[in-house]
Amino acid sequence: MDIVRVNLKKATIVNQKISKDSIYYLYGARGLTSHLVYDEVPPDCDPLGEDNKLIISNGLLTGSSFPCSGRASVGAKSPLTNGIKEANVGGRPSMMLALHGIRALVFEGISPRLKLLVIEDDNIRLEEAQEYARIGNYELSEKLYEVYGKKIGIFSIGPAGELTMKSASVAANDLEGYPSRHAARGGLGAVMGSKKLKAVVIIPTRKSKISIVDRNKFKAIVKPFAKELAESKEWFSIYGTPNLTQGMNIYGGLPTENFKRGSYEDVEKISGEKLHELIVSRNGKNRLPCSPTCVIKCSNQVMDSNGNFVTASMEYETIALNGSNLLINDLDALALINRYCDDIGVDTIEFGGTIGVAMDCNQLKWGDSTTVLKILNEEIRNGTEVGFLYGNGVKHIGITLHAKRVPHVKGQGLSAYDPRVFKAMGITYATSPMGADHTSGPAIVGRKAHLDKEYGEYNEDNNKLELSYELQICIAILDSMGCCYFIGVNFEMIELLTNALNAMYGLNLSADEVVIIGKEILKMELKFNEKAGIPRDQNMLPKFFREESSEPLNLRVSISKDELNNFWNRLG
Amino acid sequence: MDIVRVNLKKATIVNQKISKDSIYYLYGARGLTSHLVYDEVPPDCDPLGEDNKLIISNGLLTGSSFPCSGRASVGAKSPLTNGIKEANVGGRPSMMLALHGIRALVFEGISPRLKLLVIEDDNIRLEEAQEYARIGNYELSEKLYEVYGKKIGIFSIGPAGELTMKSASVAANDLEGYPSRHAARGGLGAVMGSKKLKAVVIIPTRKSKISIVDRNKFKAIVKPFAKELAESKEWFSIYGTPNLTQGMNIYGGLPTENFKRGSYEDVEKISGEKLHELIVSRNGKNRLPCSPTCVIKCSNQVMDSNGNFVTASMEYETIALNGSNLLINDLDALALINRYCDDIGVDTIEFGGTIGVAMDCNQLKWGDSTTVLKILNEEIRNGTEVGFLYGNGVKHIGITLHAKRVPHVKGQGLSAYDPRVFKAMGITYATSPMGADHTSGPAIVGRKAHLDKEYGEYNEDNNKLELSYELQICIAILDSMGCCYFIGVNFEMIELLTNALNAMYGLNLSADEVVIIGKEILKMELKFNEKAGIPRDQNMLPKFFREESSEPLNLRVSISKDELNNFWNRLG
Repeated sequence: MDIVRVNLKKATIVNQKISKDSIYYLYGARGLTSHLVYDEVPPDCDPLGEDNKLIISNGLLTGSSFPCSGRASVGAKSPLTNGIKEANVGGRPSMMLALHGIRALVFEGISPRLKLLVIEDDNIRLEEAQEYARIGNYELSEKLYEVYGKKIGIFSIGPAGELTMKSASVAANDLEGYPSRHAARGGLGAVMGSKKLKAVVIIPTRKSKISIVDRNKFKAIVKPFAKELAESKEWFSIYGTPNLTQGMNIYGGLPTENFKRGSYEDVEKISGEKLHELIVSRNGKNRLPCSPTCVIKCSNQVMDSNGNFVTASMEYETIALNGSNLLINDLDALALINRYCDDIGVDTIEFGGTIGVAMDCNQLKWGDSTTVLKILNEEIRNGTEVGFLYGNGVKHIGITLHAKRVPHVKGQGLSAYDPRVFKAMGITYATSPMGADHTSGPAIVGRKAHLDKEYGEYNEDNNKLELSYELQICIAILDSMGCCYFIGVNFEMIELLTNALNAMYGLNLSADEVVIIGKEILKMELKFNEKAGIPRDQNMLPKFFREESSEPLNLRVSISKDELNNFWNRLG
Repeated sequence: MDIVRVNLKKATIVNQKISKDSIYYLYGARGLTSHLVYDEVPPDCDPLGEDNKLIISNGLLTGSSFPCSGRASVGAKSPLTNGIKEANVGGRPSMMLALHGIRALVFEGISPRLKLLVIEDDNIRLEEAQEYARIGNYELSEKLYEVYGKKIGIFSIGPAGELTMKSASVAANDLEGYPSRHAARGGLGAVMGSKKLKAVVIIPTRKSKISIVDRNKFKAIVKPFAKELAESKEWFSIYGTPNLTQGMNIYGGLPTENFKRGSYEDVEKISGEKLHELIVSRNGKNRLPCSPTCVIKCSNQVMDSNGNFVTASMEYETIALNGSNLLINDLDALALINRYCDDIGVDTIEFGGTIGVAMDCNQLKWGDSTTVLKILNEEIRNGTEVGFLYGNGVKHIGITLHAKRVPHVKGQGLSAYDPRVFKAMGITYATSPMGADHTSGPAIVGRKAHLDKEYGEYNEDNNKLELSYELQICIAILDSMGCCYFIGVNFEMIELLTNALNAMYGLNLSADEVVIIGKEILKMELKFNEKAGIPRDQNMLPKFFREESSEPLNLRVSISKDELNNFWNRLG
């Protein structure tokens, strides 16, 4: 596999082989983006300046038939957290890169003019992209299909990325062709925009460069696992992640009214069941895979009341942060918010969190979806002053408005799980090198890192530090394989992944050795952050979660500050 | 003299005598505000939180007849720089506090409701101020005159301070009764607002508490000095500080178009001469003293074309930052900007700098004074989202808009002297513990700290580090005396001040001992900043001043980064 280095300043493209003896050989996706950022990006650089690098990498298993292994990580120094960042995404392009024999794209420097990178067999090239300037991801993908054919894979940014707004995402087109999948968190779209790279277009390779060393062994691992996984997720695939909405409400941890409370009186209007009903009645789609090899198929397409396509991939986090958190009880409005965010290239989580703070400061009316849509479609899209105000994320608006409740950690807005209720998730928010990111140690109810270990109730401190720690290690590994964590986040899964890896690459790794790699990834991320001014022993949650009780459960963040600050001592 | 401690949370008022053996005895105004901030404010506290303190203190010579000694310092941890801050101001109230026998007011805690502090002989009290909520300084002073009489002195904040915007100022009423004098820099009005203190009302004392130990000696020093000073400033008093506008333009250091260049084609339309003409022709006023004992009298009052009062105290910095810097060539518009800033309680320097960045980012049109006035009078005044965007200063809007040219140091916007041209001023900006503040080491053309020393041309690096350093020491002393620095910033003046101090307090200090006190003040400020996370060896100017040449003189900041970083080694 190759690392393709694209210097946008000099307009040069260089291929670098990852041989068996390369230090990068066992690092894919997040493992590789973090390794390269650690090795090559000056920790004190301006995240939107010349010296930052944007890295897109698929996983070690991407390109194979391993279930749900078609994800790519995008990595850089984040303009939102000023620390290291990785966000991963499904869709088409990751698998297509892998089939081209490309493990990673490394973008360096800043182009004088807006550019596309086009990847075609034996012809990787930069093209002018001025004609696509400031257009949304939806229009962009249509235009690119006209030029390069319907089957291309695309990574792209919308206007928010070009305007280097700190909530900007990197879009990937989905299997149906819509730019609905996003490496959304951490403002990586702004890094891509700062480099003046509008899109990466991947024309399908004529011949796959992927080889599996021991095909029979690999098949013997993959086939039964895929079958078992598909069957066990049957119910999940019907409702997808929005299925969580009612559950989180019952647990009292559904962000409501800028995290003031954890349950929402109108939850039924925005529930997964309601969304499912709406999708079915309007001939929308559910049970869609987000990327090749996905057998879980939790994605969806939402139509309007006339049966016309509005948006794809409506997720729980989008519904919670923009629904209950803003007291918007209308799924059609939420579908439009999702559509606009995807089109403009904005992280739906960061956006909902930002609007929540503004509503809490009485700058906007609770539940006023009309104004929220206007902010997206007129202000952010056009880069007005108000657009920049709302496009730079939760922390920034908190500073601007001198707000009391600013739900962020290390500059990144909290995801849709109240840390007072979901104690281990709160620890993940506080300690992850990525800022408040639920995916970096997704301790939702019932999740265990060792299936036979007791971690206590979700809303107790009991063993929650260990749970978060172990999940963060497991996730670092899953992320590096290019795998969706819905396949299972636990050390038993690491065994299975190790076996698949050994079969694919002809290796003889033990699961313990793979765990060591996972820990190495976290260590590099933490070290980068230290040098960037984010010490590993400063892990705080917003004060108000310690001072104000959640309703209705009357819980506060109770884990001691020392325990959070000492969290990473575990890693040595 | 007393320190009066007002705890706004507990609604308690405690008098503390400064006896001869107090560590505060030789510290007045900035010396005392900085000493108290250093001693009592936790460096890591939220500047707008419970633990910050707002201190208002007059100088060691305030209350006497020493020329131009009627100034007060306002001090706190700044929400703009997150470091220590002092801003000083003339007007009525400083002298009135001194006559009451009060050296300093220390405001602690946060009041649950908006309050006034009323100072009356034998009756210092807090009063409810809800009826004055969110009104401007002009309307406020009118209402306070009705209740407490025409002769009161007032420190107050406008809506910007109540809204805790980081460019908010503390107003002082002038000798004519207008709230035109401002301790403007560093967002100290936001600190006052955070404490829910709307105003300090000082009812004239029936009997002065000031005593001069050796009256004859004091008179012998003061009388000839006052006469000489008044005569030497005769010409300056006609035009006031706006007189600098043409001069700075000729030197090529007049901030123009967000500091892109140093001269302005329409400079004549906003010059001091033009302003003078306009004042005279409309029966405005010039040669006004800003405070009691002022013999320089450089202040003014500007009328509109109907002869009605618009604003008082139009200064050079206001004209430059809001005129040439924004390409606004209309003195009537600038007078209105000054009026609105004074009324709403916003620093005119920070405001002009902020708008300049927005114009440079194409968010506003160059020269569009109508929109600028609307931003002040509708957005900032009413605390809209756009108001908060423009009310939080230069650095904040630079972050919001991801601007290239952000003229600030340590979070405070640059004053009206291009640091590429005025080299020593640039060093002051870079190194002052106060952020980019021209008054903290005002090295304009021709200024010398030792009258017989050669510092080289203004636009050469030669000896400029020494000049800035020496001026910063002299200013720390002048500020602590309560003196306007227009009396002269040099070590000869320190001799004179020492003599006056000795006569007033019956002391026997040498000028060298007074210089040591000046250095102590700077040391405390630098130490506070270190603890607040602003190291004394990190003294940077915005990058663009090193990368882009000033027009027409083609100069860049040329002093080495190491020399700036090592600047404070001089102090030991």
